[in-house]
Amino acid sequence: MNTKRIGRQTLTFSHPPAIISSYAIGGEKERQGPLGGFLNETVSDNLWGEKSWEKAESKFLQQAILGALTKKKLSPDDIDLMFAGDLLNQCTATNYGIRVFPIPFVGLYGACSTMGLSMLQGAVAIDGGFVQRAICATSSHFCSAERQFRFPLEYGGQRPPSSQWTVTGAACVILEDSKKSKNGVKIDCATVGKIVDLGITDANNMGAAMAPAAIDTILTHFKDTGRTPQDYDAIFTGDLGQIGKTIVTEQLAEAGYDVSGNYTDCGCLIFDKSQDVHAGGSGCACSGLVLCAHILPKLIQDTWKRVLFVPTGALLSTTAVQQGESIPSVAHAISLTVS
Amino acid sequence: MNTKRIGRQTLTFSHPPAIISSYAIGGEKERQGPLGGFLNETVSDNLWGEKSWEKAESKFLQQAILGALTKKKLSPDDIDLMFAGDLLNQCTATNYGIRVFPIPFVGLYGACSTMGLSMLQGAVAIDGGFVQRAICATSSHFCSAERQFRFPLEYGGQRPPSSQWTVTGAACVILEDSKKSKNGVKIDCATVGKIVDLGITDANNMGAAMAPAAIDTILTHFKDTGRTPQDYDAIFTGDLGQIGKTIVTEQLAEAGYDVSGNYTDCGCLIFDKSQDVHAGGSGCACSGLVLCAHILPKLIQDTWKRVLFVPTGALLSTTAVQQGESIPSVAHAISLTVS
Repeated sequence: MNTKRIGRQTLTFSHPPAIISSYAIGGEKERQGPLGGFLNETVSDNLWGEKSWEKAESKFLQQAILGALTKKKLSPDDIDLMFAGDLLNQCTATNYGIRVFPIPFVGLYGACSTMGLSMLQGAVAIDGGFVQRAICATSSHFCSAERQFRFPLEYGGQRPPSSQWTVTGAACVILEDSKKSKNGVKIDCATVGKIVDLGITDANNMGAAMAPAAIDTILTHFKDTGRTPQDYDAIFTGDLGQIGKTIVTEQLAEAGYDVSGNYTDCGCLIFDKSQDVHAGGSGCACSGLVLCAHILPKLIQDTWKRVLFVPTGALLSTTAVQQGESIPSVAHAISLTVS
Repeated sequence: MNTKRIGRQTLTFSHPPAIISSYAIGGEKERQGPLGGFLNETVSDNLWGEKSWEKAESKFLQQAILGALTKKKLSPDDIDLMFAGDLLNQCTATNYGIRVFPIPFVGLYGACSTMGLSMLQGAVAIDGGFVQRAICATSSHFCSAERQFRFPLEYGGQRPPSSQWTVTGAACVILEDSKKSKNGVKIDCATVGKIVDLGITDANNMGAAMAPAAIDTILTHFKDTGRTPQDYDAIFTGDLGQIGKTIVTEQLAEAGYDVSGNYTDCGCLIFDKSQDVHAGGSGCACSGLVLCAHILPKLIQDTWKRVLFVPTGALLSTTAVQQGESIPSVAHAISLTVS
């Protein structure tokens, strides 16, 4: 057995990497939501002066990275490795958004679990002794996602009650070797998810498709670490929305874990019910924005001591759905602590 | 400075992870090519009994993984972590191909550089002390790639001389902690690429688009490590084809590195000129198949002692190309040695 792995899926960090900077940008709808006042920056124009939503999404990601660097007076040369990805075909937003940065780059595809996946990989590279600082970033955009995964916006398709609203924005955190950063929020361990597919075929019900992956990863995390829900001040899944959140709460209770008091989903926090988003928020930026605007501040302020952050991803493509396939999903759990 | 990083972009492994198993499957055209007899398996029907090319590509990937496991009498439970990705939107071939395996999974997007990217990430996880065994795998398929990136096959579009032929197939290697594997082929260091975009907009000339990334990574590798081309018995780029190979050879010579005697491109090896593939082979499976069918055997037979394997990826999407964007590219260099 390795000393840095416990159980089947959980990696532990001997020197828990520290989150030394974070930056979140949202669009107009995100500004109007409950966390709007806590975002580092908001942009009222969804196109942000660009000629396409895809180009705008690239700009959101680029700006989130620049924001996180600037907050700590760091330059791209101070970053050893970058981990990023997004939802668009061939991760367009990422690849075009980050090409200005001369930083060694690892491209990820984890759909809406990317915020967690990038932090997991960044922590492995740092605690493995390979690099000192890593950028972990992701983005999503309502308009680019809608036209790619569902319908052109101009079509005006009706959205069923189970549908969710893709968050427009981008988030970036910078991780650093904790031998350099004594205090602050750190990643003490992480549970790598496996793909779970229970046969859901409704691409308008992502919450139900992703909930089994979240449940699998959370239960595995508890089993691997010996922890219980009560060891965490708060537990967040990424973008399951109201339907998925209910499934997770019920299924974890059936498995003997009561999370009714300290669990919620980022998709239930980012928008208000009055914003007509149906089952809640979704997209890579959903968990990213809630991490930077809500979770990290509460940890930094010592309101919370330990949080389990579990971004969730639905690994579907329109081609696969059109061919009658079900939706495979994945979730990665990141344990955040304050020291 | 970290002890496991040299220069800006190169990670070194204190206990170089070993490649303990490999498996490559190709289609009919790959069987007819110069390396056909060295592939572990070939399939004459491009659909392999499936209803779509995407489903067939998933099957290729799944079979490559099963093949690599079976060769070493390993089960999925013996694998701690899996790294994989492909070219399709949302990495469809990967996500649907591997969902049968209950293995913690890190999804990657590096386009045709994925074979290198997955080996790099696998080596980091192993040498970082987190896991003992990792799967690194990728796939591509001529028919699924053509219809996604260019035209429906039925359209019969004419292919310009600079175009390349996407390799149909999948490749998988299994990495293991070298404290367990004393002998064999090992990864001693790896140079992580950064995105390079010199403004090429012709999606039918991938070789020219990707060559600058390959040159950047190879030059950085030499600078970081202090090595020269003569330290390698052979150097392979991933899928630049004839045009990209010529650019790399000329540009490296201008930079003072003569690679004319020991450098070639996997895309120039996988097919014969008589097979009407124009500038050569391409796709994630191109470098994957050449690795498993040509490079690893020569290392195992002691014909070569040290090889630099540099898979290359063009990070374009059809949406970006239609919006007039140029093609950002990336290349990752993996140094393979025999001990």
